[in-house]
Amino acid sequence: MTTSFPMNAGDGVYSYSKNSHLQKEMIDGAKEMVRDAIIRKLNIKIILSSSNTLRIAELGCSVGPNSFSAMQYIVEALKDKYLLNQDQVINFTNNIPEFQIFFNDHVTNDFNILFQSLPFDRSYYAYGVPGSFYGRLFPSRSIHLVHSSSGINWLSKIPKELVDEKSPAWNKGLIHYVDASNVEVVNAYFAQFEKDMEIFFNVRAEEIVQGGMMVLITAFSGYIRLMRFFGSSLMDLVNEGKLDESLVDSFNLPLYYPSPQEMTKVVEKNGLFSIERMELINIKSNLVDEADAKTLMTSLRSSIEGVIISHFGSKIAEEACARTILKSEEISEWMKVNNEKPSILFVALKRK
Amino acid sequence: MTTSFPMNAGDGVYSYSKNSHLQKEMIDGAKEMVRDAIIRKLNIKIILSSSNTLRIAELGCSVGPNSFSAMQYIVEALKDKYLLNQDQVINFTNNIPEFQIFFNDHVTNDFNILFQSLPFDRSYYAYGVPGSFYGRLFPSRSIHLVHSSSGINWLSKIPKELVDEKSPAWNKGLIHYVDASNVEVVNAYFAQFEKDMEIFFNVRAEEIVQGGMMVLITAFSGYIRLMRFFGSSLMDLVNEGKLDESLVDSFNLPLYYPSPQEMTKVVEKNGLFSIERMELINIKSNLVDEADAKTLMTSLRSSIEGVIISHFGSKIAEEACARTILKSEEISEWMKVNNEKPSILFVALKRK
Repeated sequence: MTTSFPMNAGDGVYSYSKNSHLQKEMIDGAKEMVRDAIIRKLNIKIILSSSNTLRIAELGCSVGPNSFSAMQYIVEALKDKYLLNQDQVINFTNNIPEFQIFFNDHVTNDFNILFQSLPFDRSYYAYGVPGSFYGRLFPSRSIHLVHSSSGINWLSKIPKELVDEKSPAWNKGLIHYVDASNVEVVNAYFAQFEKDMEIFFNVRAEEIVQGGMMVLITAFSGYIRLMRFFGSSLMDLVNEGKLDESLVDSFNLPLYYPSPQEMTKVVEKNGLFSIERMELINIKSNLVDEADAKTLMTSLRSSIEGVIISHFGSKIAEEACARTILKSEEISEWMKVNNEKPSILFVALKRK
Repeated sequence: MTTSFPMNAGDGVYSYSKNSHLQKEMIDGAKEMVRDAIIRKLNIKIILSSSNTLRIAELGCSVGPNSFSAMQYIVEALKDKYLLNQDQVINFTNNIPEFQIFFNDHVTNDFNILFQSLPFDRSYYAYGVPGSFYGRLFPSRSIHLVHSSSGINWLSKIPKELVDEKSPAWNKGLIHYVDASNVEVVNAYFAQFEKDMEIFFNVRAEEIVQGGMMVLITAFSGYIRLMRFFGSSLMDLVNEGKLDESLVDSFNLPLYYPSPQEMTKVVEKNGLFSIERMELINIKSNLVDEADAKTLMTSLRSSIEGVIISHFGSKIAEEACARTILKSEEISEWMKVNNEKPSILFVALKRK
């Protein structure tokens, strides 16, 4: 049984739909690389030999806007790839392929908003797929391309030892591994990530056709460090007597940000996919100013507020989030001093 | 552009999810016939020669409960059919087929409730498909079985002439064709039904594989006549000065209940499907008592309240619906006198 951590629902001030700039930057940053992987690496001849429909899974779609723009350029890249290779593609119709896009997220995701926001001029058939992507979502060998941006950062659950005061991995006073000097905490997080990815690769390997591809985009440096500021806002509330410290001790953000080395390790250990391309990209070349920091924190808030609310209640969550966003000057200074720039990890895999 | 008429959302007292007994009776009444059509008429050998996945479209699913039970017995029938013919089926895996079920309804349908109510122990992959079934929803030749219960009764729109006081088909003082002595009104309704079905068959014919089937279940006699009681409640409000008569004149329920002869006519005119079975079934052998009548009217209310609200506003809709349900004794009497029993029309078609 996995736990679900939905993005903020609806379209209010702190909703994911209005505050996912960070995720949008990630998708835009990866756009050319996704296109390049499709044009250079996808064997459309094999894929279209058995079907005239290309099936794409978008895992962790939330309520849409960023997914829609990613799906738009993926479909365009696939159409271009088809036109480039048209003479080699022999299928039973010889027509331009049709596209099916499967938008997946937890069953608690707001699919109503997703459906109501679907672009009118889309050139694909759109479906909603409720359920955790750590389980099976599709029949065997039915998917040609999987895309997931900011998806696999979310662990399926928090390892128990992080909240067990008798464990050496007890993460007292902190809400993430980013600030932890205790290496056992980092190890427990990575062990969970490894387990999750093994399951993830196994289920996707069943679903993806031979030669099919999987494009994974995850946040890396810059974002990780920002988690500390949410933690320190919660500890401010503890120090002011507004929050019981044991509530902080029993909470950990279920987010892991793999390095390229760690990603390589989990892919190779699993053995069912080949790495076609892996790259760490700075999506902002300049140092982060205060306005940037504010945008970053508001974006992060829209992603993690749900999980903070479910543990601390909405009053504490609201105050901790608001306080963190007020720290944007401090955050900007800290990022400059530490030369931290928002960056993403791009990985293109192929089903062996 | 088609108009959408969603069922009552949520799970409140008059929600579709809690008041679709009538629709449930229809599905149960058709259960054996659907099973029989699958076992006797479906050519599973041809269908499984190109794919190990059986794809089923459930059109007009609303928020689920009745669709779930229909999908359950359809999957069971398909499994049995596969086991009966296992020695003739040669596919590339020789495994038991996998099932994909596509739950379709208008984009305004409450898909969140649908997804959250999906049976835990389902043996199929479940997807949501937003959009009118009078348009394309699936790629070419990708669907093996279409099921729709109480779906095609809903016209895509109301013919303009019904609300045009200069037209001979103006339906003054009435909200449906059931009570209309004016044959032009009936003709206008049937003409719209014919147009809608021509579009419906054409798009489905593109989507369904050769030899694939379509099972359509629609309400017939009994239900149709009940519409008059909603109309008379609205006219009561007009007579009491609580409602402007022009609002009744400008409203018509977008529901058509085809006879077996009419259904045969539209299928044969289209020409892309063969009729494998067509039957009119009484789903209640006894005469309808007052409690039955109340259940019937509450069920009907959950289906049509949405469209009444959008025209008259929620206050008038609430009052008209409540008054109609209070007429259950009168309705029961009327049904007995006229020997009206709830019945359904079952049609199994095969893609030529």
